[in-house]
Amino acid sequence: MGAFPFVHRELARFSDLDPMGHVNNAVYLTWIENARIEFLRHLGAFDRPDTTEMAMILARAEVDFRAPLGFGDELEIAVRTSRLGTKSFDLEYELRCGERVVAEAKTVLVAYDYGTNESREIPDEWRQRLAA
Amino acid sequence: MGAFPFVHRELARFSDLDPMGHVNNAVYLTWIENARIEFLRHLGAFDRPDTTEMAMILARAEVDFRAPLGFGDELEIAVRTSRLGTKSFDLEYELRCGERVVAEAKTVLVAYDYGTNESREIPDEWRQRLAA
Amino acid sequence: MGAFPFVHRELARFSDLDPMGHVNNAVYLTWIENARIEFLRHLGAFDRPDTTEMAMILARAEVDFRAPLGFGDELEIAVRTSRLGTKSFDLEYELRCGERVVAEAKTVLVAYDYGTNESREIPDEWRQRLAA
Amino acid sequence: MGAFPFVHRELARFSDLDPMGHVNNAVYLTWIENARIEFLRHLGAFDRPDTTEMAMILARAEVDFRAPLGFGDELEIAVRTSRLGTKSFDLEYELRCGERVVAEAKTVLVAYDYGTNESREIPDEWRQRLAA
Repeated sequence: MGAFPFVHRELARFSDLDPMGHVNNAVYLTWIENARIEFLRHLGAFDRPDTTEMAMILARAEVDFRAPLGFGDELEIAVRTSRLGTKSFDLEYELRCGERVVAEAKTVLVAYDYGTNESREIPDEWRQRLAA
Repeated sequence: MGAFPFVHRELARFSDLDPMGHVNNAVYLTWIENARIEFLRHLGAFDRPDTTEMAMILARAEVDFRAPLGFGDELEIAVRTSRLGTKSFDLEYELRCGERVVAEAKTVLVAYDYGTNESREIPDEWRQRLAA
Repeated sequence: MGAFPFVHRELARFSDLDPMGHVNNAVYLTWIENARIEFLRHLGAFDRPDTTEMAMILARAEVDFRAPLGFGDELEIAVRTSRLGTKSFDLEYELRCGERVVAEAKTVLVAYDYGTNESREIPDEWRQRLAA
Repeated sequence: MGAFPFVHRELARFSDLDPMGHVNNAVYLTWIENARIEFLRHLGAFDRPDTTEMAMILARAEVDFRAPLGFGDELEIAVRTSRLGTKSFDLEYELRCGERVVAEAKTVLVAYDYGTNESREIPDEWRQRLAA
């Protein structure tokens, strides 16, 4: 698996902090969601009005927390495709604050047909974009 | 202005707390939003598929914070109509924790036509329900 | 592994919803955090002023999303200890809405000494409570 | 009242959106909180370890919503002191997205002594900084 082709930036908000003064764990899922959307947009996912072409559902999320974060910390969230199956694919995320890796995450996404309410094969066009 | 005819209940989540250990101020708007939706549903606002009948936008919100709240505190949020204008109306909220009033709030809501993207007169049917 | 000895309840807030009208994925971590805190409180974790006895850090979280949730959905979150290591332990969560399992989750927690800023062995007293 | 001496920037997150696809109203309080903290930091509020010098509580917040916001919208939040009383002061906020004013807000803050748990006169040093 190669390098991370895409990096998204986030900033820790005051309301993201918990009573320990650290960024609450749920905020990491919010950040990687933004990173995921920007990554897919970068791949051209939302270029066409026919967005059902890129419909998908989030089936699983995993986060490993490596170091705490505080108010005003600036994050870089690197994203890459780490698995490309028939109907589903994985994205991996590395969250860095300066030189430190503060968290790593993975999500499993399933191609979905909202017309039939069923999973579907990943269309070839996505497959090429996700593999790029 | 009479008594509060409607009460909604909420519970402070751990993630609602800020580094002082108090519920963050923005959470109060989330609570009164839930209370508002439940109040309007109680008035029959969402009984019909044609929900455009009850379309409205939030134009203004005010909150007076009286006392801090902590994890696990249980809230009662009383709601009532406090003004009924031609195109807009006000709802008032009293947030209580046990016997204490911990916050008071007011929102201004404007009847809206999403077809023309313009404000509109409050339909008579709402007017009667809101005045009840 | 036995049955779930503890159940926590949550309610989907309007602000928990995303543009699809579904509860946003990050909210699930918020819910299981509340469930975890209530489970540990139920075990007596916060009975004593000396809470450092029960200090821990969240090292990892995993969520499998089984079905979408909407506004006003009521959740039951069952919690149990699923692994008890030397310095860390796992909690498992089952999120149910009525009869449906809507999500499953696991967290890895590490016993921590905030004095030395190092992980530590799980004290015997916790070990007994977590195994109960 | 003069111009806005300070501007804070924010970015609408996907999780900030509600089912209408608009940024939820409670998020505005989160944004102006971040703007407020950065404004006070800019004034030197947190320069010294003795932060009790700048202790304050949020007594009231008002927001006027002028236009809806969507995913990825970039905000500029201008902040200024608009009233300086004996024990309390007001901050005003203007939220702009490009050339549009999308919201205006005001908060009332009260100088507070966490030792005696009572409001106090605004210290001269703050008074000068807030008036600058």
